[in-house]
Amino acid sequence: MFIKAECLQRTGSFKLRGAWWRLSSIPEAERAAGVVAFSSGNHAQGVAWAAQRLGMPATIVMPADAPAAKVAGTRASGAEIVFYDRATESRETIAAGLAAARGAVLVPSFDDPWIVEGQGTAGLEIVDQYRAATGRAVERIAVCCGGGGLSSGIALAAPHAAIVVVEPEGWDDMGESLRRGAIVPVGAHPPATSCDALQTMRVADLTFGILQRRGATGLAVGESEIAAAMRFAFETLKLVVEPGGAVTLAAALAGKLPLDSTVLMVSGGNVDPATFRALTA
Amino acid sequence: MFIKAECLQRTGSFKLRGAWWRLSSIPEAERAAGVVAFSSGNHAQGVAWAAQRLGMPATIVMPADAPAAKVAGTRASGAEIVFYDRATESRETIAAGLAAARGAVLVPSFDDPWIVEGQGTAGLEIVDQYRAATGRAVERIAVCCGGGGLSSGIALAAPHAAIVVVEPEGWDDMGESLRRGAIVPVGAHPPATSCDALQTMRVADLTFGILQRRGATGLAVGESEIAAAMRFAFETLKLVVEPGGAVTLAAALAGKLPLDSTVLMVSGGNVDPATFRALTA
Repeated sequence: MFIKAECLQRTGSFKLRGAWWRLSSIPEAERAAGVVAFSSGNHAQGVAWAAQRLGMPATIVMPADAPAAKVAGTRASGAEIVFYDRATESRETIAAGLAAARGAVLVPSFDDPWIVEGQGTAGLEIVDQYRAATGRAVERIAVCCGGGGLSSGIALAAPHAAIVVVEPEGWDDMGESLRRGAIVPVGAHPPATSCDALQTMRVADLTFGILQRRGATGLAVGESEIAAAMRFAFETLKLVVEPGGAVTLAAALAGKLPLDSTVLMVSGGNVDPATFRALTA
Repeated sequence: MFIKAECLQRTGSFKLRGAWWRLSSIPEAERAAGVVAFSSGNHAQGVAWAAQRLGMPATIVMPADAPAAKVAGTRASGAEIVFYDRATESRETIAAGLAAARGAVLVPSFDDPWIVEGQGTAGLEIVDQYRAATGRAVERIAVCCGGGGLSSGIALAAPHAAIVVVEPEGWDDMGESLRRGAIVPVGAHPPATSCDALQTMRVADLTFGILQRRGATGLAVGESEIAAAMRFAFETLKLVVEPGGAVTLAAALAGKLPLDSTVLMVSGGNVDPATFRALTA
């Protein structure tokens, strides 16, 4: 089993790849006004991390129910946090208002060519690392998918590998969109999911278009499969993996994905200890 | 902070390094009789792993209260397990009897030049990896210490680094021996410790001698410091670390060890989920 363990990445997920690439492209003269982003937590930490290193102020719009680990990680990088209510407020509107008022750059979490390109650096590493470890080319990469920034970036970076996106059941809109050949949003009443990082209601033309042209396919996994994968990661891999980061491993352990010549992207490990205990007990 | 994360090693600890080096030195003609070892679990898994790959039968003498994760890992590599009672039986006597009856090779867990040399390969990697990451030579390596196989091996492999052995309070016999200049065993009634991997009653002339000649020093950490280090590893490093593997990190987080130019050996991650929950709650 080959795993790209981005839970071990700085900030605990792959998200700083895209954030760094986007923020470092902002001309020096425009950096003082800072950046604004909205995120349940991993993109938040990535943007905060990159902004701190570039000396830029960062404001992050986060849901009031974001995991404490993600709020703490974002705050630790010096970002200002503005909370909103998932049920009654629009994070897009709040973030756009803040960006306009401050003259700050709004940094989307996936619908942006810089972000896609930055996340794709994980794909460049997968290609090189798989070849170094096995002497062969990687044939298949399974990627957890919310808005599709990571999966489309990897699809571009690994043009010879089959791309399989993995989503929680009921939130598998990218898979469904790829099957139908057109973007389908998540249904009106999606089921509860532990995958806070993958609760994106609609993918982007940019990310869907890349995955469609690359012939990507989709898979969905259930909550008990995700919990089993988190337990496996703890007991066997000695890795702390968050629910959204465990979906590819869940698919593999459930026999939904061949392991031969496959790399599983395990995208993040930002989970509160209490949540981890509850899910894996 | 630089960590050598041997919890990510196959079998979940560094122990397969010495086991592989020792077992692969056994002449082909003598392999059919197999090997015998005694261990609370990490050496057990290392020996079982190496024996399975060399096609040798392995019998491991384990305490009846060994962590379930370690028993399962040892069994998964096809070894036969013989349990004994820590309070009333001698594992050395049982293992020696089994080895004599079967004509098998007894593989000590630390008092053996092959084992010391094998564990030392972690030190060769630390020297190379620290230089690759920083461009500088590593100045100090902190190593968790039971019988001293790993720490003496690293001391030989990294002859220019200061070696600091770290032990649980009340079990810090290597540190005390180094201070006194002669081997002092653990006291008659040592305190309870979560570090099942570091409960060695007496170090060996071999390992003590190497560390003494290298001018190694010792540190002790308490149970609450160890638990805090396990929590830190979970929340920040996204690593599952067992109590005995967390003592160097515990010393660093407690301010007992300078972090500058230091590598912390985190030696293993074989901890039962329930134990982990209890220690880190």
